[in-house]
Amino acid sequence: MSQYDVLCIGNAIVDIIAQCDEAFLTDNGIIKGAMNLIDAERAELLYSRMGPAIEASGGSAGNTAAGIASFGGSAAYFGKVSRDHLGNIFTHDIHAQGVAFDTKPLDGTPPTARSMIFVTPDGERSMNTYLGACVELGPNDVEADKASGAKVTYFEGYLWDPPLAKEAIRLTASHAHAAGREVSMTLSDSFCVDRYRAEFLDLMRSGTIDIVFANSHEIKSLYETSSFDEALAQIRKDCKIAAVTRSEKGSVIVRGDETVVIKATEIRELVDTTGAGDLYAAGFLYGYTQGRSLKDCGDLGSLAAGLVIQQIGPRPRQNLKREAEQAGLL
Amino acid sequence: MSQYDVLCIGNAIVDIIAQCDEAFLTDNGIIKGAMNLIDAERAELLYSRMGPAIEASGGSAGNTAAGIASFGGSAAYFGKVSRDHLGNIFTHDIHAQGVAFDTKPLDGTPPTARSMIFVTPDGERSMNTYLGACVELGPNDVEADKASGAKVTYFEGYLWDPPLAKEAIRLTASHAHAAGREVSMTLSDSFCVDRYRAEFLDLMRSGTIDIVFANSHEIKSLYETSSFDEALAQIRKDCKIAAVTRSEKGSVIVRGDETVVIKATEIRELVDTTGAGDLYAAGFLYGYTQGRSLKDCGDLGSLAAGLVIQQIGPRPRQNLKREAEQAGLL
Repeated sequence: MSQYDVLCIGNAIVDIIAQCDEAFLTDNGIIKGAMNLIDAERAELLYSRMGPAIEASGGSAGNTAAGIASFGGSAAYFGKVSRDHLGNIFTHDIHAQGVAFDTKPLDGTPPTARSMIFVTPDGERSMNTYLGACVELGPNDVEADKASGAKVTYFEGYLWDPPLAKEAIRLTASHAHAAGREVSMTLSDSFCVDRYRAEFLDLMRSGTIDIVFANSHEIKSLYETSSFDEALAQIRKDCKIAAVTRSEKGSVIVRGDETVVIKATEIRELVDTTGAGDLYAAGFLYGYTQGRSLKDCGDLGSLAAGLVIQQIGPRPRQNLKREAEQAGLL
Repeated sequence: MSQYDVLCIGNAIVDIIAQCDEAFLTDNGIIKGAMNLIDAERAELLYSRMGPAIEASGGSAGNTAAGIASFGGSAAYFGKVSRDHLGNIFTHDIHAQGVAFDTKPLDGTPPTARSMIFVTPDGERSMNTYLGACVELGPNDVEADKASGAKVTYFEGYLWDPPLAKEAIRLTASHAHAAGREVSMTLSDSFCVDRYRAEFLDLMRSGTIDIVFANSHEIKSLYETSSFDEALAQIRKDCKIAAVTRSEKGSVIVRGDETVVIKATEIRELVDTTGAGDLYAAGFLYGYTQGRSLKDCGDLGSLAAGLVIQQIGPRPRQNLKREAEQAGLL
């Protein structure tokens, strides 16, 4: 049986990242801070209006897998690309990071997913995602040995957007739980929560999910409340562990009656928030699968999130193991 | 007749940028700090050994054109890409920056050029360039109106590597000089100088070139001397203006007997030297075509170079006009 610390499952996406001003978002009907789903035609239109960009492998759970590997953890990934240039880039980058990624690619149609990410001067990112090949990820892509062999399986709420991925998740979770493993998810985006609220709550309440990652907007959306404290009180009852990030206020981790408050790390210059939540989850899950305390898990998450938001792009260029050692966390 | 501040001509390249340690360069026979030419097979081998990367439009003169446009100057560009994914990226990025770029692309073969750039912990970049479509740039690609209409034409010494580009340069220079315009070049790389020393000296001494950009290694290679002062004394005689960069020592500009010494800007963190010379030329040529003093031209060059080496990638993400205004240079 294969052994991994974490198996990550997500939409396999290459990011196309450019800066823009606030007016650009308004003029183009882009919801700020959100993941906006777009079709091929709108992707072309937005690209024609986009400023000079850089390309970098992304995808929420892909970023998390890369982060775990950078900490020195062993990570595997399920996600669907096509055999095209962006697919080659995605595959190269995740392999080069040491992540096991063997999902069979499509033969070119639909093409590999891309997300046009516009970063405003305040560092906030607004994403416009054309799902492309991701719509084909399904239960046939579940590698049972990895699903059973990973200490924790982690997937994106975003996977409820393509039609078949949720079946892959349910199958993976059943393999994992049958092997005595844990399953975790990120709520991904407050609009995504709004689209799939009942299903996400059911995943949690049915015990399909053990650990939930979210930010404050997402849990407030989940429980349809404007009160963070109320949402936190509710999520305590709905899963074993919830790790909730609060931007510059750090994060809060709850497990039953236990509450652990984590500070954010100090930021020299906020450049681009892309990947913040993904890297928090990477640090947390790396610590968690090494048997660390919730406090250590949160601190490792904060460290990785703090690094990625001080650069352009969703995967930090630093070696996270070395950074954590220098910060006295490992 | 079209009117541009600067027409730039170069190898149209997309950069693939990753970090590596010093041993990686040695183990893979990569000359540190240089532009290493590679074939398709070696490109594949190196990519398979390369760490996680990001992709960004590059190409020396392309970076300069983008920089000039970012300062608010009008720039045009000649360079050859293919109709493929990297070609689309290159074309999008240079158009999005406001540069006029109309060179007819190839129909897919050879593919668009790429350079695998390895950045060592000291920030030095070592480039490995597969020229691809660039080998097809030739005199048929010279747009006479742009050649005659640009105040200054600027091209890379690197263009002596592909077989036909030098003919395009000679034709462009003759259009430019016939219209009373000036022509400039960068010596590009000390090994490139070594390959084409006699031809570069002939370009300068024959008056094909008015302004030369170089770094200290390149002029020492040009005159086969280990003495910077001796090389500087010689280049004074061989062209109207020479602007010679010296990394952290700033730059020296000579015009006949005149000598202008320019300080480097202060650097908070040296991240990646890619694009330093290209952006120095951008600042200089923007100032020069606005009728600024050599001192101002050098300061604008220093500013742009200083910004690009504090980030990953060859084109600064800042608006250079705004940066120059804030620094009191415009």
